[in-house]
Amino acid sequence: MSRAFNFSAGPAVMPEEVLQQAAAEMLDWHGSGMSVMEMSHRGKEFISIYEQAESDLRELLAVPANFKILFMQGGGLAENAIVPMNLSQGGAVDFVLTGSWSQKSQKEAGKYATSRVAASAQADGFTSLPSPASWHIGADSRYVHICSNETIHGVEFHELPDLKALGCDAPLVVDFSSHVASRPVDWSRVGLAFGGAQKNLGPAGLTLVIVREDLIGRAMPHCPSAFDYKLVNDNQSMYNTPPTYSIYIAGLVFQWLKKHGGIAAMEQRNIAKAQLLYDCLDNSALYVNKVDKACRSRMNVPFFLLDESRNDAFLAGAKARGLLQLKGHKSVGGMRASIYNAMPLAGVQALVDYLREFEKTQA
Amino acid sequence: MSRAFNFSAGPAVMPEEVLQQAAAEMLDWHGSGMSVMEMSHRGKEFISIYEQAESDLRELLAVPANFKILFMQGGGLAENAIVPMNLSQGGAVDFVLTGSWSQKSQKEAGKYATSRVAASAQADGFTSLPSPASWHIGADSRYVHICSNETIHGVEFHELPDLKALGCDAPLVVDFSSHVASRPVDWSRVGLAFGGAQKNLGPAGLTLVIVREDLIGRAMPHCPSAFDYKLVNDNQSMYNTPPTYSIYIAGLVFQWLKKHGGIAAMEQRNIAKAQLLYDCLDNSALYVNKVDKACRSRMNVPFFLLDESRNDAFLAGAKARGLLQLKGHKSVGGMRASIYNAMPLAGVQALVDYLREFEKTQA
Repeated sequence: MSRAFNFSAGPAVMPEEVLQQAAAEMLDWHGSGMSVMEMSHRGKEFISIYEQAESDLRELLAVPANFKILFMQGGGLAENAIVPMNLSQGGAVDFVLTGSWSQKSQKEAGKYATSRVAASAQADGFTSLPSPASWHIGADSRYVHICSNETIHGVEFHELPDLKALGCDAPLVVDFSSHVASRPVDWSRVGLAFGGAQKNLGPAGLTLVIVREDLIGRAMPHCPSAFDYKLVNDNQSMYNTPPTYSIYIAGLVFQWLKKHGGIAAMEQRNIAKAQLLYDCLDNSALYVNKVDKACRSRMNVPFFLLDESRNDAFLAGAKARGLLQLKGHKSVGGMRASIYNAMPLAGVQALVDYLREFEKTQA
Repeated sequence: MSRAFNFSAGPAVMPEEVLQQAAAEMLDWHGSGMSVMEMSHRGKEFISIYEQAESDLRELLAVPANFKILFMQGGGLAENAIVPMNLSQGGAVDFVLTGSWSQKSQKEAGKYATSRVAASAQADGFTSLPSPASWHIGADSRYVHICSNETIHGVEFHELPDLKALGCDAPLVVDFSSHVASRPVDWSRVGLAFGGAQKNLGPAGLTLVIVREDLIGRAMPHCPSAFDYKLVNDNQSMYNTPPTYSIYIAGLVFQWLKKHGGIAAMEQRNIAKAQLLYDCLDNSALYVNKVDKACRSRMNVPFFLLDESRNDAFLAGAKARGLLQLKGHKSVGGMRASIYNAMPLAGVQALVDYLREFEKTQA
């Protein structure tokens, strides 16, 4: 098969230009005589790759100088433990439950802190966002955690909550794994943001943490050294050997983002792609997306066939057209199209064409 | 520069055939229309890669059926915390200190357990191995930890200790990061072995854990779910998203090992390579390796110039000949040649030729 359109939720589609460059440089990076995979993380070649990646990401996401960028390991799931070990000091923390990922985070934090639910959209099947005005945040809260894009339920915060306006001084922790770099971030509202790289940034196995520097240095005694933000930051993410090749690939993605207009241009593309797909679903008698229009994700679009007996036929037809990995997460069923930065408009158009064609054959 | 001889201690030289195959498959793996980097970890394509890698590694290392193979993240340094969180149950554990890595492991375990020193070679500058008969292992020991190859100090256990013969029923924990797959493992003496991949197996960011199944399921309450061996094992290393591309590359390395005669053939090659280099050092009036001949590492060969004022000239001359990353670890100084599986005999011969030539110019 030639290159397909790959709608996987993650690991996910990569920019083809990035893959081409990685292939071309695999045996000899910039005349060094080495693959990036073979470089000492402390050598000048890799340090230059690392510093360029960090600097490009800081520029792209407009990360203020008082935030530190850490490249870690373990994914968002490990951060569910690492964040409370670093920030909770064993006190109370508040979670807003908007889907599977915030639920998992809230549960894991209970190992280290008094893990409370400030609000939950579970009663409506995670199809809406509880209004910040309704959140019950304790006065003793060490932080408030949200998942700003729920990969499984397809729910996105289109504006980050302003905790200060709610009378809350606690920092906001944001799991932005599945929409990082798809839109700008209002850092004035954020204390810490984290995300696995395998959706919008690069290969699985790299975890991005961006943390306000005054929150660093509070780790609990049983926090593993490799995951203590202070040690990671003091050692430029090289307290343990970092996932060097994954950082290199992410760096190529950052350069691709810059070349194609940066985050503002990417956001406009993502709005157009999402609009095209949601319009198709909304104008159909066969497909349905159940999420409140005010908080539909631009990245992850779950949908259902009203006749679920047609699911296998739908997926088989899609695969035959090179439209891959459209099966929904096992916990919710149905279908899901993840349309990250690297998914071109042509891919979404091909999916929309197929959606219409398949619906006609069912009439 | 064309491909150089790269003596980095890790990340380290990879087999050129593996890099060539990875480059060729970068945009489209086996006609799937996807890079391995883009595959869902739960899709059939990646599952086939994963299962092949696990099965090849089990065959290569002759891992018995009652040991589980886990692919994790965080490197050996993270395992320094993850092992005691999983095995110590907060009790007492014993360490044999033979260099920097076992020292670090012993210190980190103190966060979770009563971390004791059963023996130490610190007094002689970590140039020898304390005889197992001299180890002081408590009757209440939850496990005994050794680093079977000290990457920095160049000290290797050429035989794993037989704890049962010492009257000790505790399991042996082995950090085999820097010589895994360079020689057979006597699993009858092992409870758990772990290692970062970035020396002999593949890219940084992948951690291998091989654990006897009766030791799984003892994690302490504050062990992060992502690092609880039971959850990792119950979910085929996919409790969190695994480092998929790194597992794929490691799988290619395993196939390369099988193609070139497996571990027994690799061991013979490694013996010959090490012999060539140590003989050169021992027959020189300029270079010295200080490690007891009975426990010199076949993988990491630290050496010093007796006239250290010549260090920079030595390194510059080496680099000019395409002999890279020979500088010793900053904590010990001098030089270090790491000659892992993927370093061909021709690379060691080129280094030996240069060592002799450089020595002549100093006469």
